[in-house]
Amino acid sequence: MKARFYAPDAHAPGDLVVLPADEAAHLSRVLRLVPGDPVRVFNGRGQEFDARVAQVGRRDVQIAVGRAAPAAAEPRVAVTLALAVLKADGTDAAVRDAVMLGVAAIQPVVSHRSEVGLATLERGRRRVRWERIAIASAKQCGRATMPDVRAPRRFEALLEDLAEARLPRPAVMFVEPGAAAHAVSLAGLDVPRPAAATVLVGPEGGWAPGEIARAEAAACRLVTLRLPTIRAAAMPAVVLAAVLAAWGEL
Amino acid sequence: MKARFYAPDAHAPGDLVVLPADEAAHLSRVLRLVPGDPVRVFNGRGQEFDARVAQVGRRDVQIAVGRAAPAAAEPRVAVTLALAVLKADGTDAAVRDAVMLGVAAIQPVVSHRSEVGLATLERGRRRVRWERIAIASAKQCGRATMPDVRAPRRFEALLEDLAEARLPRPAVMFVEPGAAAHAVSLAGLDVPRPAAATVLVGPEGGWAPGEIARAEAAACRLVTLRLPTIRAAAMPAVVLAAVLAAWGEL
Repeated sequence: MKARFYAPDAHAPGDLVVLPADEAAHLSRVLRLVPGDPVRVFNGRGQEFDARVAQVGRRDVQIAVGRAAPAAAEPRVAVTLALAVLKADGTDAAVRDAVMLGVAAIQPVVSHRSEVGLATLERGRRRVRWERIAIASAKQCGRATMPDVRAPRRFEALLEDLAEARLPRPAVMFVEPGAAAHAVSLAGLDVPRPAAATVLVGPEGGWAPGEIARAEAAACRLVTLRLPTIRAAAMPAVVLAAVLAAWGEL
Repeated sequence: MKARFYAPDAHAPGDLVVLPADEAAHLSRVLRLVPGDPVRVFNGRGQEFDARVAQVGRRDVQIAVGRAAPAAAEPRVAVTLALAVLKADGTDAAVRDAVMLGVAAIQPVVSHRSEVGLATLERGRRRVRWERIAIASAKQCGRATMPDVRAPRRFEALLEDLAEARLPRPAVMFVEPGAAAHAVSLAGLDVPRPAAATVLVGPEGGWAPGEIARAEAAACRLVTLRLPTIRAAAMPAVVLAAVLAAWGEL
């Protein structure tokens, strides 16, 4: 299989585009490709092209975009994953898997039980790291669409985003068994397949009771999967597979 | 939360049972519990009990089984996961996740593209390792039922097991996009919720064409998820979440 690169500037056959720095390094220093080598590029907005390496410079790699190639289909539900920031590398794994499972956007959330604050995330340039992981995952899994990896928000700000329609409805919050009186099973969630949805997944130990109450007051639907305790880092993949299957999208 | 141990000999309140060696080491040397400490035990067959440490010896740990405690519910579909052996630690991660997702049994399979043979698995005592991982996962996720971790089989033997009803039907083989002409989507799999099922998940690179053809000839249903390429180690969790959701079990 030809190597695949993220080329956000590729619009149409005939374009000559410069790769982002990470992609250029992967092409020239890791894979050691040279001018004339055939590659695939995707622009992150659903388009994929056959292409060739046109030039490999010290700082730039230029790609000659060829004919359009079939792009992997995207789910009909544009899911925004509102993901509580996890411990250690848990968020990295969750971002990687969420991209494979076709999310439209990832909104990291600092929740009560996330063991890290917004300032630490910003100092650590974690958003840049998650964007890199998302690009690597899209390259590997064959998606031509790059999910939007948003700047982390506090839980309260997330609810404001929902209230002001900056995040799509329905909003479905997944909660631990016994954490909420009004939670239903996924099978009991009577929501026909929407065009877009926000799916909220908590941190290790789950959402705090106050967060669940505020989400419910903000008209989030509460769902508890009929499963034992799932590892927090595996939860996004499990939840996304389950909701896509329940909406007939798999 | 009280520490939880696997005590296969616990049948009823009043029992005095000896823990398996690994469990005893966990209790005495890792957690340093002493006689009188309250614990939880599960017997792997769906029963859970409050209990106390009765005696901690050099070689044995005895547990006094107390009153029955509520056990986590099991899915109504008893799924046997026929899992192609994966590279490196991929199978370990897959076993861990499959236990969280409620499988009834795990049948490791040496397929054409598994990069390891039966003899190597036996020499490496991999089944014992997977059983340990399954116990650790059941302890952590709160399941009271221990899936049966079977001895690895060649793919041909798996088909014989299906033919001779040693594995449950329906049998659903998950194949990569484009790998089979007759594969349907999960939404297109017109199979009402069964009492038991066998779910076949392939290795890195997927099942070989000959394996797919033989499975189809053996009346396995072929399903391709409408997703891009999923990491092989993440595939069992994604497939299990998807089939349970599709059968209304989540």
